[in-house]
Amino acid sequence: MAFINEIKSLKDQIKFDKRFDINYDFDNIVISGMGGSGIAGRIFQECYTKKPVFSISDYDIPDFVNDRTLFIAMSYSGNTEETISTVEQAMKRNANIFAVTSGGKLASIVKDYIEIPGGMQPRSALGYMIMPLFNTFLDISDDDKNNAYNTLNNMDQNHDDIRKEAYKIYENSYMPVIYGSAPYSWVAYRWKTQFNENSKILAYSNYFPELNHNDTMALKNTYRKERFVFYVLGSSRPRIKQRINITKEITDTEFNIIDIDSDNYLEKLFYLIHYGDYISYELAMIRNIDPMDVSTIEELKKRLD
Amino acid sequence: MAFINEIKSLKDQIKFDKRFDINYDFDNIVISGMGGSGIAGRIFQECYTKKPVFSISDYDIPDFVNDRTLFIAMSYSGNTEETISTVEQAMKRNANIFAVTSGGKLASIVKDYIEIPGGMQPRSALGYMIMPLFNTFLDISDDDKNNAYNTLNNMDQNHDDIRKEAYKIYENSYMPVIYGSAPYSWVAYRWKTQFNENSKILAYSNYFPELNHNDTMALKNTYRKERFVFYVLGSSRPRIKQRINITKEITDTEFNIIDIDSDNYLEKLFYLIHYGDYISYELAMIRNIDPMDVSTIEELKKRLD
Repeated sequence: MAFINEIKSLKDQIKFDKRFDINYDFDNIVISGMGGSGIAGRIFQECYTKKPVFSISDYDIPDFVNDRTLFIAMSYSGNTEETISTVEQAMKRNANIFAVTSGGKLASIVKDYIEIPGGMQPRSALGYMIMPLFNTFLDISDDDKNNAYNTLNNMDQNHDDIRKEAYKIYENSYMPVIYGSAPYSWVAYRWKTQFNENSKILAYSNYFPELNHNDTMALKNTYRKERFVFYVLGSSRPRIKQRINITKEITDTEFNIIDIDSDNYLEKLFYLIHYGDYISYELAMIRNIDPMDVSTIEELKKRLD
Repeated sequence: MAFINEIKSLKDQIKFDKRFDINYDFDNIVISGMGGSGIAGRIFQECYTKKPVFSISDYDIPDFVNDRTLFIAMSYSGNTEETISTVEQAMKRNANIFAVTSGGKLASIVKDYIEIPGGMQPRSALGYMIMPLFNTFLDISDDDKNNAYNTLNNMDQNHDDIRKEAYKIYENSYMPVIYGSAPYSWVAYRWKTQFNENSKILAYSNYFPELNHNDTMALKNTYRKERFVFYVLGSSRPRIKQRINITKEITDTEFNIIDIDSDNYLEKLFYLIHYGDYISYELAMIRNIDPMDVSTIEELKKRLD
């Protein structure tokens, strides 16, 4: 699939209706996944807090994992070595293991897995990875899904403004800095990773109010500030809105606010995600770089074998 | 206290022997704290996993917090509005609440609090904040503490090499990028925040193996790579060591490895933390900037009132 079509498929992924079939009690949820697959768990962790939810992106599982743990492995390829390592450890602890994957080793070792369409870049399958979590644990209506679908559809039809924004980054060789806030803090990190993988540039993220305890001091006095461009994901939380405005004023920083006129969680979530998809994609196009190329990561994996 | 003396006091803080007096069962631990106070919970979360430990740096607590939750509030001043907000919420849920603070509102609303010396910058009191957690939940011997003390004492006597490193950053107006790995991933974030608050420059952190799924693609192809300096906190985990070496080779990036010839957790932890303290402090000195100054953060707080 052409990469632009992978991006455009996000709206359809919202309608992916699979869910985990959980017939027992559990004390906590551990979601294991790396990079483009791991981000699903992190976003979910921010909106579902009825039970302790742990996202891990490493080789090892926490000591507390046992037969009262719901363990969900997320790996698009099904062959991510860190994720497989955590599943093998979770099996020894008799955790209740589920998975979301397009196949690979994960599909062969985890009985309860949700199969998602293969052949894409893992980072393009975020909808497929996250919707099983939403469908299982959140109460999301078809209306919400339709609204989110329509919003993404509009962006797919026309995102000239986002392309212009990408051009600004290119022209100035900016390093993007993305500031989020709950429940969208991890969308800021998603943008960072999309700039890394699609546009092949460095970027970083942080979130309000935490960044008011550190970044804020640098925003006022750093050297080379003109080399950074700041994107702030809009918030409807009054105190966070205040913090964004005051931070901007007292540090004299141009904040590009990315927001949508909707407080519906799902719609706003996917709008913000999709904005990051497009801006990083368009920047790759302008840089004349293949956004799909992840040869360096592939080479690393080969060298590790 | 002069800021350099605050930094030098870290070695003594390791010997701070207070612990929480916990006489009941609990299901999970939630540690609430922002910035220089919050980092203690995050570092602890990475080395203690027998129970689910949640670090939060925001206004709100997770829904699962109840009377089986051990809730620990960390605020050096005792007046951090986000942390106070979480404590008030935790009280309504009948959580078992402890605190570490030098006073303020926290000391007046939480009965079971550990008092730590006041009058310092919160970020200089990391030892005071973290040792009560270690003393309560980890089995750390006096020998370990003495070793860590001696290591820091040596650094306090002589850190010319670190000053030179800071000069390199200054000369090139580098943006520092710090890569850690468990159990020291959050030390990389600590460096970032120290560069922000002490040196007043932007910086960012990530960790192995997660960064191999995103940053790696940027390291190979980003523009302006010559503007970044990369610090990698050494690891003794074989697979992580391999990843560090291969990443460096295939992306052709100069990694400055920061490490100590010791695998003792406490000693290495404080060595890595202290290195970050000094490099950010020395950079402030070279930039002719007051490392203690946090007037922008103070102004923000005032504007929020």
